[in-house]
Amino acid sequence: MIGQQIVLAARPEGEPKESDFALVETEVPTPGPGEILVRALYVSVDPYQRGRMSEARSYAKSVALGEVMTSQTVGEVIESDDDRFAPGDVVVGQLGWQEYAVARGSALRRVPPSVPPTLALGVLGATGLTAYFGLFEVGRPVPGDTVVVSGAAGAVGQVVGQLARLAGCRTVGIAGGPDKLADLTGEYGYDVGIDYKADDVNGALKAACPDGVDVYFDNVGGELSDLVLRRLALHARVVVCGQVSQYNNQTPELGPRLLGLLIVHRARIEGFLVTDYAPRFGEAIPRLAAWLAAGKLRYREDVTDGLENAPRAFIGMLRGENRGKALVRVAEPG
Amino acid sequence: MIGQQIVLAARPEGEPKESDFALVETEVPTPGPGEILVRALYVSVDPYQRGRMSEARSYAKSVALGEVMTSQTVGEVIESDDDRFAPGDVVVGQLGWQEYAVARGSALRRVPPSVPPTLALGVLGATGLTAYFGLFEVGRPVPGDTVVVSGAAGAVGQVVGQLARLAGCRTVGIAGGPDKLADLTGEYGYDVGIDYKADDVNGALKAACPDGVDVYFDNVGGELSDLVLRRLALHARVVVCGQVSQYNNQTPELGPRLLGLLIVHRARIEGFLVTDYAPRFGEAIPRLAAWLAAGKLRYREDVTDGLENAPRAFIGMLRGENRGKALVRVAEPG
Repeated sequence: MIGQQIVLAARPEGEPKESDFALVETEVPTPGPGEILVRALYVSVDPYQRGRMSEARSYAKSVALGEVMTSQTVGEVIESDDDRFAPGDVVVGQLGWQEYAVARGSALRRVPPSVPPTLALGVLGATGLTAYFGLFEVGRPVPGDTVVVSGAAGAVGQVVGQLARLAGCRTVGIAGGPDKLADLTGEYGYDVGIDYKADDVNGALKAACPDGVDVYFDNVGGELSDLVLRRLALHARVVVCGQVSQYNNQTPELGPRLLGLLIVHRARIEGFLVTDYAPRFGEAIPRLAAWLAAGKLRYREDVTDGLENAPRAFIGMLRGENRGKALVRVAEPG
Repeated sequence: MIGQQIVLAARPEGEPKESDFALVETEVPTPGPGEILVRALYVSVDPYQRGRMSEARSYAKSVALGEVMTSQTVGEVIESDDDRFAPGDVVVGQLGWQEYAVARGSALRRVPPSVPPTLALGVLGATGLTAYFGLFEVGRPVPGDTVVVSGAAGAVGQVVGQLARLAGCRTVGIAGGPDKLADLTGEYGYDVGIDYKADDVNGALKAACPDGVDVYFDNVGGELSDLVLRRLALHARVVVCGQVSQYNNQTPELGPRLLGLLIVHRARIEGFLVTDYAPRFGEAIPRLAAWLAAGKLRYREDVTDGLENAPRAFIGMLRGENRGKALVRVAEPG
């Protein structure tokens, strides 16, 4: 059997180009003892993947040239030599941008039939879990806090704002462009939305956060974050989830040195990775599912059709062109 | 009665000059009901005072032009209308660069006769307490950690290194010049000393911290900190105690944006102020005193004679010219 894959063809310099990727067709491996063959339904497109395309030292090894691009994937079990999985089961795992993948059961999580498969990549998957653990474990919001989110209409940001409201906080979302701005307050329940492309962000932040920023959940970094860091409240917590404005830089961008502000505000800046919380995913997923079922978590997905378009979807996502969680549909459930 | 004071004569632009200060003589106020008249023995010279000379928003209000320069002072009670204090008692408080000060008892802490007065400004005063709470509460070292300290031969840094050793850590101190370098390992028990003025700091850090930096206690900031931040270990804690390299800047210096490293290392950068721990000073001082008595805490003082020389001592301290805790002797105990 032949399957399609998107492999890394060249290491992007600056902004990735479609030619940095290649669509290849290869023989699908036969699953060995204990292994499972999965057919992809949707593959995910997320900012962290930019880091995996680079050889810079990071928390995970780089994707090699010619190797399948890594991604979260939700798919259907085709063949299984593991009693825990049967053909037809929907599963999610780090299976990459490819039609077929062979994995061990320990690398897969089952998606219940009641859950739409795309949610396993979104609110009930890595992005929802990132929002949950980043906000609650690192940001530690308490009722009455003002929580500012950058990339607030993105896959993670849209969930963060709603979780912060559930925690009794005032929420201020920052995103780019009129569509996303409308979604911030219209869909994701932000108390205030700021369009960084159109608004005077500094003035808008000042007006929206008269008592300062208690929690800043940062997906973006760069100059936008400089403005927020200058408005921290006493004992503020800054959650560094992503720095998407910086990911295409070959060398670090220069910015003002602001660490002295942490003394003034007795504030904390902390980075985290959702995978460190894997032992606790089982705590978070039922809560997220319950909030979804109760209509307390709304979400938007931005679906691109066809595995061959994953690179384009990825490049567009880095530019902020997606409206909601960026996904690529590979196949319909069989 | 007439007393001498050093007042702020002009707001320093960049590095302070002696002409930014003025020595004045004024009538000493008569203590009112419940008040205490204190004659200064030693006044302290510390980096945070640079912030008080500026009008930039900070954690405490600026010293006004013509106002006595704020400082920790250890002195002798001359007159007291508070039963808790008697003439001859030695006390410490934020009494400023002046010969005589009037204060309420709540603003003073008694120094036991067994304690040399200068220690109330050093290891058993604000600097020792800064080291204690910054390292143990913010840095949270555990045995086996590698702890790097910038400004390691300074008033706070010399204590931090020794406290980290008491906590079972390996300690790496960074300071400038051969005298301080000798003190790092010779006096303060650092396992490794690095002279940032003479050594290849990056190479020296790499050699000294083969498993990365678990705790970075930062008194200095700037390019030195950039080098340390690039060597953090997983779950590293960066304690922002001071940023003395930045205090003379009129606008923030530019440096590489490195917050993305916090994701890679799941690391935390946190600022603190020792005054927030005032309710717990009574916990720390007996411990510091016991370690001193047991010979487990060594210290060096750099004493300048004469209140009139406080500005010069301050300017020299900002330049790193002091070897140990910078103090100004105002008078001998009477």
